[in-house]
Amino acid sequence: MPASASPAPVTVVGLGDMGTALARAFLTAGHPVTVWNRSAAKADPLVAEGAVRAASPAAAVEASPLVVACVLDYPALREALGSAESRLDGRTLVNLTNGTPEEAQETGAWARGLGAAYIDGGIMAVPAMIGTPDAAVLYSGDASAFGRHEAALRVLGPASFLGPADGTAALNDIALLTGMYGLLGGFVHAAALIRSEGAADGSEGGSVTEFTENRLLPWLTAMTGILPALARQVDSGDFRTEGSGLAMQLRAYENFLSASRARGVRTDLIAPFHALMERALSAGAGPSDDVSALVDTLRDGRG
Amino acid sequence: MPASASPAPVTVVGLGDMGTALARAFLTAGHPVTVWNRSAAKADPLVAEGAVRAASPAAAVEASPLVVACVLDYPALREALGSAESRLDGRTLVNLTNGTPEEAQETGAWARGLGAAYIDGGIMAVPAMIGTPDAAVLYSGDASAFGRHEAALRVLGPASFLGPADGTAALNDIALLTGMYGLLGGFVHAAALIRSEGAADGSEGGSVTEFTENRLLPWLTAMTGILPALARQVDSGDFRTEGSGLAMQLRAYENFLSASRARGVRTDLIAPFHALMERALSAGAGPSDDVSALVDTLRDGRG
Repeated sequence: MPASASPAPVTVVGLGDMGTALARAFLTAGHPVTVWNRSAAKADPLVAEGAVRAASPAAAVEASPLVVACVLDYPALREALGSAESRLDGRTLVNLTNGTPEEAQETGAWARGLGAAYIDGGIMAVPAMIGTPDAAVLYSGDASAFGRHEAALRVLGPASFLGPADGTAALNDIALLTGMYGLLGGFVHAAALIRSEGAADGSEGGSVTEFTENRLLPWLTAMTGILPALARQVDSGDFRTEGSGLAMQLRAYENFLSASRARGVRTDLIAPFHALMERALSAGAGPSDDVSALVDTLRDGRG
Repeated sequence: MPASASPAPVTVVGLGDMGTALARAFLTAGHPVTVWNRSAAKADPLVAEGAVRAASPAAAVEASPLVVACVLDYPALREALGSAESRLDGRTLVNLTNGTPEEAQETGAWARGLGAAYIDGGIMAVPAMIGTPDAAVLYSGDASAFGRHEAALRVLGPASFLGPADGTAALNDIALLTGMYGLLGGFVHAAALIRSEGAADGSEGGSVTEFTENRLLPWLTAMTGILPALARQVDSGDFRTEGSGLAMQLRAYENFLSASRARGVRTDLIAPFHALMERALSAGAGPSDDVSALVDTLRDGRG
């Protein structure tokens, strides 16, 4: 607890696994915490730890200048806070519900119309990480409100404020998650190939654990190191590589498709990257361009 | 140079960027090196550094007990060594040409039919890394020949012998590369989303470099850490997670699709993972299973 001031009151709306973790982190840091959840029993453990259960969303909002919401989705948020609209004036709503940039923009406009300051956030962590240095949280929206409540928000984990547009945090959240699912998709395909080893002779297939620990993990760790160089190519628009360009990579990639098919492993997850390289080359990407050129190809769908 | 013995003679067939790097690493380590390439001029720099240019593939094979080949593809390998078939008897052919496990098996059978020992390999490095601790090379095939030539092969970089099946190194090579392309595909989609930021108001879009260095890189580094746990699920067949299962992940994933479409970013690279989750759930995967369950779904194409 800082010597300069007592921790300020905080309200937490939504007590799923993540909302409960948020409320608990505020309690642990000494904040007076008011909680509300649609099914009230979810608050029982937190009340036992010192939280106050609000009788209604309106009472919950009224209890604190800072209202942190984390519910299932944006429709659930508007449903939860609908009866509290008249109480939002002058308060700060920090919305950590998963959603799209467009939903964040709409919700920001709604909250500001009611006189509230609005901050949208994306939590890059699982509930068990909340309150630790590993729980990065991205914020965007009202900068001065973020400044006023930054000390409280840092209780949840390292906080990054990305700018004044309400959708920026959600966009970055989604970009990071699609990056993660790319990694996971690559793992799933690689694991299917390793399991296919020896399958023709009826044996169980290779050990994915041995493969992952001894080879995939060090390999991917090294490969993440090339992403900043690819990022600089994207920003500069100069995609040329001194290594293998798209034309050579396309050729090597055909081995991945044929080896997968030969072993009965579906190519659903890997064929699209091959098709995108072909599309880029026919749309004018250079044969010596690196895969960074594919970013523009993905964006050729824009109007 | 080890005190116990002079480095043994090595022949390198194929002098593209990678073959040249291999030959140079052997020269640097003090091995007598004989080289052959279809277009002879490619050998000039190496000859200036002390290599011997063979007049024919047959002369090249005859010059050394260890023949390392790295050409464009397997048809090019068979074409290059076709006129040297009678000289392979008693020698060890280490084939580092990119190909499929099936090509490695066929080439192993062909080489053994001529009396050679056969080792197939996959180089997990770019040419500039050859001869450094970062150039991991995977081998499989004839274990005793690997033992005889291991000291020479370690000149190229850390060497892993994965087993006696000729196709194992190629399979692991391809599995690692598909894992890498998953990572790259995730990066490409994430970068397209970040570039889309502000695009509606005519601005240039967000900085992919800033995003990658400050957020994507630490995030993916943390996320690679969960792969061993997923790998153990694959090996055990128990896919249940205490975190978000497939049903919840599928729901969150819909935000990635709609946010991408709203910004004109094609969903080519991310839609297949969504479809695979749906396929897994309708094929009987549990809603609380993690994405590790998708490995079996990819393999349901097998006969």
